[in-house]
Amino acid sequence: MRFETLSVFPQVFAPYLDESIMGRAQRKGILDFEAYDLRHWTHDRHNTVDDAPFGGGQGMLMKPAPIFEAVRDIASRGDAKPHVVFFSPCGKRYDESCAQRLATLDRVLLVCGRYEGMDERAYELADEVFSLGDYVLTGGELAALVVIDSVVRLLPGALGDEKSAEDESFSDGLLEYAQYTRPADFEGRRVPDVLLSGDHGAVDAWRRRSSIERTARWRPDLLDGATLTDEERAFAREATRREEGECDG
Amino acid sequence: MRFETLSVFPQVFAPYLDESIMGRAQRKGILDFEAYDLRHWTHDRHNTVDDAPFGGGQGMLMKPAPIFEAVRDIASRGDAKPHVVFFSPCGKRYDESCAQRLATLDRVLLVCGRYEGMDERAYELADEVFSLGDYVLTGGELAALVVIDSVVRLLPGALGDEKSAEDESFSDGLLEYAQYTRPADFEGRRVPDVLLSGDHGAVDAWRRRSSIERTARWRPDLLDGATLTDEERAFAREATRREEGECDG
Repeated sequence: MRFETLSVFPQVFAPYLDESIMGRAQRKGILDFEAYDLRHWTHDRHNTVDDAPFGGGQGMLMKPAPIFEAVRDIASRGDAKPHVVFFSPCGKRYDESCAQRLATLDRVLLVCGRYEGMDERAYELADEVFSLGDYVLTGGELAALVVIDSVVRLLPGALGDEKSAEDESFSDGLLEYAQYTRPADFEGRRVPDVLLSGDHGAVDAWRRRSSIERTARWRPDLLDGATLTDEERAFAREATRREEGECDG
Repeated sequence: MRFETLSVFPQVFAPYLDESIMGRAQRKGILDFEAYDLRHWTHDRHNTVDDAPFGGGQGMLMKPAPIFEAVRDIASRGDAKPHVVFFSPCGKRYDESCAQRLATLDRVLLVCGRYEGMDERAYELADEVFSLGDYVLTGGELAALVVIDSVVRLLPGALGDEKSAEDESFSDGLLEYAQYTRPADFEGRRVPDVLLSGDHGAVDAWRRRSSIERTARWRPDLLDGATLTDEERAFAREATRREEGECDG
């Protein structure tokens, strides 16, 4: 899969994407990455990409012309037109289902804003606008890295043999179960006995209950969308009620 | 303000934090940053930080011992104990109010997981656990960078003279208004006339309506918590109704 970014700080991507799982994905040919510098599509000697907002106010906005020219030029390269993603607090909340959907595409171009924001007309170029959350960043570069990281790890082979991306938070609509590794007793904090029992059926049952309990405790909003048996749903209701009781008390 | 990170990829932070607004904040002494390598607190020749999960399953977990030892050691350094932040899908959803709160602290330590997750017992060390959103990343490093970026930009002087962090999305519970810069006509796409009028009162009124309309359209869930006059609330209801009508149609 090919990811491209368009930004005024093209140098910040490689130091992250060349490391660890992303670096391995590039070396294995799973991830193909290119960072474009928006200033390449300016025509003045200062490579100006920003200008003052109409109507006054603090800060600078990204001008529409370089973004239009860049996105059109980049899209005209290669065989497949890229899926063009912009970021904005007005966008759709990015989540694991977005990552799964992007992971089916061949080519995604992530356009990263900076400064006070972007001329509103530029958003016309977007096939999709994402919001990463209700917070403000100095630019879209970190948002782009989050999208690339969350998508690439879903691509076949990216996580290596040791792990598939199933059986983790959000994959089945629940939070992941609590996990433990050695030592079985750390300064008096003991791992639940069942996990040491070697009884796989009991381990699986404990993990399923742990997932449901944790979801009921921390993210009860997820329960409605989760696939649960009638018995599990009753258990979830009970866990939620217990949690509310604790909060009241 | 001092930010510290604890992770097995300490090298991925500086390339981002040395650039642009974060780099300037460091040079101005607004941001003091240090990345610790978790492997420093291991005692075997392979510097092992992970181990297989009890109960079986794919992937590796981060062992509790190095994390406990590292956090205790780091916390014992310096004058002020750090506010210790972990990341988990079970955590509190990170938002602008969290950033504003962290911006009042002197020292924050961000603990970044990797691999399949972290031994559950390690979370006992956290003063606070954040979730960045309902998606899974290969590690906590990007989450830490998001937190640092969103907090540092709120610190006095970080954005320079050209901009305060007021008057933007989430600062007053609304999305920010649409913004435009030159040219006034870009390939037939015209900037709203009022923004070219020089009438500051009319510009302010248009921007306020734009904020409310955009919030009603894309994030109606925010309206309940926003501070609106009775007249503005009626306008917001009308905008929401219009939007729903369009969706139906």
